[in-house]
Amino acid sequence: MSAKDGQAGKPQKGITVKKDEDFSAWYTELITKAELADIRYNVKGFIVYRAWATISIKKMYAKYESELEKNGHMPLVMPTVIPERNFFMEADHVEGFAPEVFWVTEAGGEGKKLEERLALRPTSETALYYMYSMWIRSYQDLPFKRYQSCQVFRYEGSMTRPFFRAREFHWIEAHDVFATLDDAKAQVREDMETTYKMLQDEFCIPIIFFQRPEWDKFAGAVHTYAADALLDSGKVIQLPSTHLLGDNFSKPFDVKFINSEGVSEYGYITCYGPAISRIYGAMIAILGDDQGLVLPFDLAPVQVVIVPIYFKGKEQMVNGKCQEMEKVLKEETDFSVKLDDREYITPGEKFNEWEMRGVPIRVEIGPRDIKKEQVVIVTRNPRDKHFIKIDDAVEKIKEIANGYTAKLRDKHLRKFDDLIVMVETIGEAREVIESGHIACIGICSIDMRGYDCAENIEKGTGAFIRGKRVDEESISFERCISCGRPDPVTVYCAKSY
Amino acid sequence: MSAKDGQAGKPQKGITVKKDEDFSAWYTELITKAELADIRYNVKGFIVYRAWATISIKKMYAKYESELEKNGHMPLVMPTVIPERNFFMEADHVEGFAPEVFWVTEAGGEGKKLEERLALRPTSETALYYMYSMWIRSYQDLPFKRYQSCQVFRYEGSMTRPFFRAREFHWIEAHDVFATLDDAKAQVREDMETTYKMLQDEFCIPIIFFQRPEWDKFAGAVHTYAADALLDSGKVIQLPSTHLLGDNFSKPFDVKFINSEGVSEYGYITCYGPAISRIYGAMIAILGDDQGLVLPFDLAPVQVVIVPIYFKGKEQMVNGKCQEMEKVLKEETDFSVKLDDREYITPGEKFNEWEMRGVPIRVEIGPRDIKKEQVVIVTRNPRDKHFIKIDDAVEKIKEIANGYTAKLRDKHLRKFDDLIVMVETIGEAREVIESGHIACIGICSIDMRGYDCAENIEKGTGAFIRGKRVDEESISFERCISCGRPDPVTVYCAKSY
Repeated sequence: MSAKDGQAGKPQKGITVKKDEDFSAWYTELITKAELADIRYNVKGFIVYRAWATISIKKMYAKYESELEKNGHMPLVMPTVIPERNFFMEADHVEGFAPEVFWVTEAGGEGKKLEERLALRPTSETALYYMYSMWIRSYQDLPFKRYQSCQVFRYEGSMTRPFFRAREFHWIEAHDVFATLDDAKAQVREDMETTYKMLQDEFCIPIIFFQRPEWDKFAGAVHTYAADALLDSGKVIQLPSTHLLGDNFSKPFDVKFINSEGVSEYGYITCYGPAISRIYGAMIAILGDDQGLVLPFDLAPVQVVIVPIYFKGKEQMVNGKCQEMEKVLKEETDFSVKLDDREYITPGEKFNEWEMRGVPIRVEIGPRDIKKEQVVIVTRNPRDKHFIKIDDAVEKIKEIANGYTAKLRDKHLRKFDDLIVMVETIGEAREVIESGHIACIGICSIDMRGYDCAENIEKGTGAFIRGKRVDEESISFERCISCGRPDPVTVYCAKSY
Repeated sequence: MSAKDGQAGKPQKGITVKKDEDFSAWYTELITKAELADIRYNVKGFIVYRAWATISIKKMYAKYESELEKNGHMPLVMPTVIPERNFFMEADHVEGFAPEVFWVTEAGGEGKKLEERLALRPTSETALYYMYSMWIRSYQDLPFKRYQSCQVFRYEGSMTRPFFRAREFHWIEAHDVFATLDDAKAQVREDMETTYKMLQDEFCIPIIFFQRPEWDKFAGAVHTYAADALLDSGKVIQLPSTHLLGDNFSKPFDVKFINSEGVSEYGYITCYGPAISRIYGAMIAILGDDQGLVLPFDLAPVQVVIVPIYFKGKEQMVNGKCQEMEKVLKEETDFSVKLDDREYITPGEKFNEWEMRGVPIRVEIGPRDIKKEQVVIVTRNPRDKHFIKIDDAVEKIKEIANGYTAKLRDKHLRKFDDLIVMVETIGEAREVIESGHIACIGICSIDMRGYDCAENIEKGTGAFIRGKRVDEESISFERCISCGRPDPVTVYCAKSY
């Protein structure tokens, strides 16, 4: 990275809103002052990702792609547009997505109409499976696992919140075809494991997987399994989901293979859609604090910043030592290291700026440190200060770097048992939800048979039924909280961002 | 990579067309049989990039992005759509691009019109500089250097050729703002150096930079400098171009900064657009041969393929040795290694398939080799065969890997002096161009004053004036080949893909 990175004139003043007093205002300030995104672009619902966020998002993509490739996926690139006729081939899918589609209708100057409307992809099933039907021939081609990293477009009415919700967002979509339903189900489990590995282990985001109720599943899916991130507020954020599509799309798109007996069969399809930009939003929302961004070590655009403490007449000596430290760190580690030698702002302003931007490690060197042959090492989270002999500095920095993300994980990953309250009536559910908890309730069914009860519950609580836990479930209820039928399914009810 | 990579059923038969007999047919066969792209997607001019091409293209992006970052660029992500009002702010720009724009006009179901048409970006000046005017405040913010990796959309009438020409293509665009015109000119030179470093050194594509004539420059630029790749056929392909925009966009978009004296000034802008998908197309067209793909070592999706030579009853022993070799290679190198243990095709079919796909190194191990404690190492280009003691195999493979790309470079990089013929009349120019050469001619001017002559020359030769060489020029002419005026500019005239 160049010496000019992130040095756009005078630094922004720090975050002024406390996160737990007004999350929304805090988030908006964070986005603006740490220069993560800009909402002033003049198309409603479309956000600019600035450099600092883009660098972390690229690193998240790289980790995710590498994990998918380890699991046998190969990348491809599909066109951004989908012809209207493909889009209309699967009935549930089109019903679900049609209200959200942006259409390209003109091209070639002066309002010239295209022969066929082209959808900006809201998701790529209807583009990909059109091709899969030509590519997949035999059982030897299966499993056929592909992913693409791309952006998708959805005309959503609700309010834009940078990274969380926008009309264009950036994701990976993996679409896999199998010879049997069991193989497809195993893929859904693999997708969930991938999600835990990435979100919890790498990005320090606490999640639970829910099987979504029938009325809340992906348009065209047999079942949808979605990860909800659980926030301290008791609200949840939907993160990656994986869908068992069965042969719902194979049939209209003719995705068939010849099995080992020479007989033609439909393939079973799964799709998995981690929305990287949204995961980034959830991550900075969960990990951030009143000083600003907090990032896992690997994802920080700058991992170690060196700040010279100037005293009159000693600038050259201090700069010399700082440059030495920069050189050694770059030689002996592969960390992203930055020497902030701007002369027009004070060390204190630099501390604030890099803390707000979530740089994990700061090294301070001043004339007094040089005299004592030491450096001062300050960590962003937890905030610790170490006075270290200059010869031991690199080792100490490596040690801190090594344990940094694990500490963040320990702080944020939690079972959330204390957030969850079992309740027996809708009134109680509303109360616990209003007080920042997740209500655990019984509902007669998460099939369409439970739909009326769900409507009643959601109206009564002002919250959403997130579904049935996919991991172990120890809680059971006697009756549906709405209709009172016996032997209900245990589900969770929460407000969501 | 997984064991299933690139194993889509029975392999395609090899390339049947000779490259120098019918380049177009050869290229089409290569694209199809090596599974690089698919032209059967059902939107005209939109191409699917398959896994094998996508992996190399991703590696090309990574190299290019890293080089741009070394030169002080930071990444960002802009929305894909540009509001009509931005698009119309710079007159030359809109005039140049309007005929090529795809417009989004509807969203939200049932033909609901948007309030304002949205362009699918054909290039991002009018989106970015709208933001730059808000981001850039002071001389301390300069130089302000940003890039994005994205796709762009152009409604082009001419025939689609995968990677070379399509209505959606994938590029990087870097947009830089400077305090002075001199700084901007220095950036243009840096962009040209970056181009040589990437295209010649990394991708083995021979190029020359031309300053394009006034009538052929980027819409809105002061000057355009474009790299042409020179093919053996004498035809050229336009590759990255860098544009000095001066203050042409700063003024309408109000990109200003306060200089060190406190005075507000317009910034000077440059933009640089390496089209990675097109560069990939040029690379495979130039390096490929009658057997199929040839790739620089770093860009090959699989770098070393191990092919077991089975004999009845010895399968297990051979597989064991091959797995050992795979394990050692993966431990001792970071190469992408693949053991092709498919049982339903012959070793010969495997050789053909991996040669067609451009895998640089093949290791063959059969019972006889095991007996002799050797392996057979075959290189794709140049085609060499080595019998190596098994204990020395890894070292030999490292040595071959190390020198592989340099050999490709030596083979393809050339001065092209023998392709260039100086001519004094339009008739001669036509003749030498028809015979597969580049005509070097004098023209009175590459300003608009030379436009009529250029039209006359291009009509008479059936070729295009590529411009004035940016590197040294030793050739000079007495008179303009068209109007006869003295002291002309030396330019080059060639057919292009």
